[in-house]
Amino acid sequence: MAAPSPATGPATAPGARMSSEMREQPAVLASLADQWPELTTRVAALVQGAAPFGVAFLARGSSDHAALLGRYAVELQTGLPTCLVAPSVATAYQREPKGFAGWLLVALSQSGRTPEIVDLAHRYADAGARVVAVTNDVESELARAAALSIALGAGPELAVPATKTVTAQMLAVLAVAAGLGPGGLTRTQAAALSGAVEQVLGDTEAPSRAAELLAAHDRVAVVGRGACYPSALEGALKLQETTGLMAHGFSTADFRHGPIAVCGPTAPALLLAGSGPADQDTLDLGLALAERRAPVLLAGTAPHADLSWPATGGLGECLLATVRGQQLALATAKFRGVDPDRPVGLNKVTLTS
Amino acid sequence: MAAPSPATGPATAPGARMSSEMREQPAVLASLADQWPELTTRVAALVQGAAPFGVAFLARGSSDHAALLGRYAVELQTGLPTCLVAPSVATAYQREPKGFAGWLLVALSQSGRTPEIVDLAHRYADAGARVVAVTNDVESELARAAALSIALGAGPELAVPATKTVTAQMLAVLAVAAGLGPGGLTRTQAAALSGAVEQVLGDTEAPSRAAELLAAHDRVAVVGRGACYPSALEGALKLQETTGLMAHGFSTADFRHGPIAVCGPTAPALLLAGSGPADQDTLDLGLALAERRAPVLLAGTAPHADLSWPATGGLGECLLATVRGQQLALATAKFRGVDPDRPVGLNKVTLTS
Repeated sequence: MAAPSPATGPATAPGARMSSEMREQPAVLASLADQWPELTTRVAALVQGAAPFGVAFLARGSSDHAALLGRYAVELQTGLPTCLVAPSVATAYQREPKGFAGWLLVALSQSGRTPEIVDLAHRYADAGARVVAVTNDVESELARAAALSIALGAGPELAVPATKTVTAQMLAVLAVAAGLGPGGLTRTQAAALSGAVEQVLGDTEAPSRAAELLAAHDRVAVVGRGACYPSALEGALKLQETTGLMAHGFSTADFRHGPIAVCGPTAPALLLAGSGPADQDTLDLGLALAERRAPVLLAGTAPHADLSWPATGGLGECLLATVRGQQLALATAKFRGVDPDRPVGLNKVTLTS
Repeated sequence: MAAPSPATGPATAPGARMSSEMREQPAVLASLADQWPELTTRVAALVQGAAPFGVAFLARGSSDHAALLGRYAVELQTGLPTCLVAPSVATAYQREPKGFAGWLLVALSQSGRTPEIVDLAHRYADAGARVVAVTNDVESELARAAALSIALGAGPELAVPATKTVTAQMLAVLAVAAGLGPGGLTRTQAAALSGAVEQVLGDTEAPSRAAELLAAHDRVAVVGRGACYPSALEGALKLQETTGLMAHGFSTADFRHGPIAVCGPTAPALLLAGSGPADQDTLDLGLALAERRAPVLLAGTAPHADLSWPATGGLGECLLATVRGQQLALATAKFRGVDPDRPVGLNKVTLTS
C-alpha cells in the first residue's frame, strides 16, 4: 500500500500522463454521444413492460461521484426511489439484499474487476435486480455479470488520478437516465457537452492562475449544489490525491450551516456554480465568505468566474465542473512540486473487503 | 448570516453551554430506552399488514448523520432498499416524488420546523409514503405532518453545535429499525448505551490530551467504517463548527484509495474503530499512516486507544464514537481559544431553499 506505484513506460514529465488522459476526454465523450440512440434504446428495452420500482447505484471512489450524478439524474427525471448502495452492508456485515426484484442496479467500476463491486452485482442480480454495468472493459467480470453493459471506450488509464473514465462514467449514467423516460439528455446535448469539454480544456491559463492562489494554502473547501455537488466531491478528491491539499467537498446547503467556519484568510473556498436552478444558492455564499475574508475562487458560468465553462444547462454541467477540478488539481500539483501521475503511497489497484 | 448568534441567557464560560448539553445525553438516552417497547411497537403497527417496499430518510446537517446510521441499521436488519433523499430534487428542481406508495419516510429535524424538511414530508406523504417524524418538538409542524411522531425529549438545545439532539436522533432511528423486524437493538441494549455514554463522558482527560495534539494542527482526517462512518462525518462536522479546523470525514474504504494522501507529519488522522465487523479495516490504516509519518489518534475499543469506549457491539457504538467526537471538538476549541457555543458566523436557524 505504501510503495509508490511503479512507473509504466518511459520516463515522462510530472503530470504528463494525467494531462494526456485529460485531453482524451472530448473524443471519449463524443464517441459515447455517437452511441446515444443505441444506449438509450437498450436501457429502455431493459425496463420495457416493467418500469423499475427504483434504481440503485453501486460504486466506490471517483465512480461514486458519477453514481451520485446518476442518482440525481434518475430521481429528477423519473421521481422514482433511487439509492446509493452501501457496499459494506453486504461485504463487512454479510447481509443479503432483498426486495430488489424489479429494480435496476447500475454498477460502476472503471476496471470492471473491483472484487466487491463484482460480488455485489451478482448478489443484487440474485435478489431480482436487473444489472447495468458501466465499465471500461467490456470483457470484464462485471460486464459479464450484467444484463446490459455500457462500455466507456476510454482506453487504458495509467495515471493514478482517474480523469477520462470519470467524465465518461458521468455521461454514461446520463444515458441510463435518458433511457428511462422523457426529459433526459439528448444526443445533440451529449455531443455539445463533448465540445464544451474541449473548450474548457483549451483554457489552461485560468487554472494556472487559480492554482497559484491554491498552492499557497494547505486546505480548501470545494462547494457546489445540484449538478455541481458531485463535481465538488470529485474536485476535492482530485486535489487530495494529486496535491496532498486538505480539500473537502461540501453541499452548499450543508456548508452554510456549519462547515463554513473552516474558511478564513488562510483557508480558501472554491465555489462551483453553473446555470442550473440550484446554483444561485452557491453564488450567494460569496458574501458570507467575503465577510470571513476567505479567498474565493469561482468556477462556473458567471461572467466574473475565475474558471469559466459554457452554460450548456442541465446536469451535464457536472462534467464541465469536473474537468475544471481536474485542471486545478493538475496545475496545483505542479506548483507544489508533486507528480500527480505518481502520488506517494497510492496505486491504481482497488481492493477493499 | 455573518453576525454571531446572540448570546442567550447570562454570560457563561466558553463552551459551558455545549458542555452542559453534552452531559444531559445519558438522561435523554435513558428516557428513550425506557420507551423502547412502545416506540418499536408503534413502528411495527405502522407497517403491519403491509411491509414497506423500502425506507427513505430525509434530513440535513447533523441530522443527516443520524439518517445515515438509520439507513445502515434498516438495510442491515431488513435488507430492503433504503435511500437518503436528496432534498434539492424537490426544492431546487421542483420534481415531485413518485413510486413511494408503501414506503416508509423517516424525516429528521431537531426543531421540526426546517421548512424544506416539512415541505418534503408533505410531498412524500402525498406520494403515498407513511411518514415517521423524529423531532425534539412534538407540537411542531413536522410532527403534525407525520403518521407517527417520535419525540426526542432532549429539551431546549441552545449551543450552536448540536450534541444531545444528535445522539437522541441516532437512538431514535435504531428504534425505528428495531420496530421493522427481529434482530434490532433491544431495550436492554439501548439502556446499556445510555450507561456507556455516561462512562465516556466521565473521562475528560483523554479528550484534553488528544485535543492538545489536534490543536497544534489546522487540519485532520476523521476516518471510520460501518457504525463509525456516520460518527466520522459527525465528528468532522463538530470540529469544523467549533474549532475552524479543516476536519474531513471519510469512509475507511474510500480514504485508503486516495484521500490518505492528505495525511502526513503536519496532517493527523483520527481513526474511529469499535468492535464491529467493519472496524478492523480502519485499524489496518495505522501502518500506512505511520509510513506517512502522520500523527494518529485512535478512538475505539482497542486496548491502546487514545480515546476509549466500552465495546457494546452493534451499531449503537456509533453514539459512543459520536460523543468522543463532541468531547474532542469541545476540548480542541478551548485549546484554540474559540467559544464553541458561539462560533463566528454561525447561528442556530436552518433555512435552505
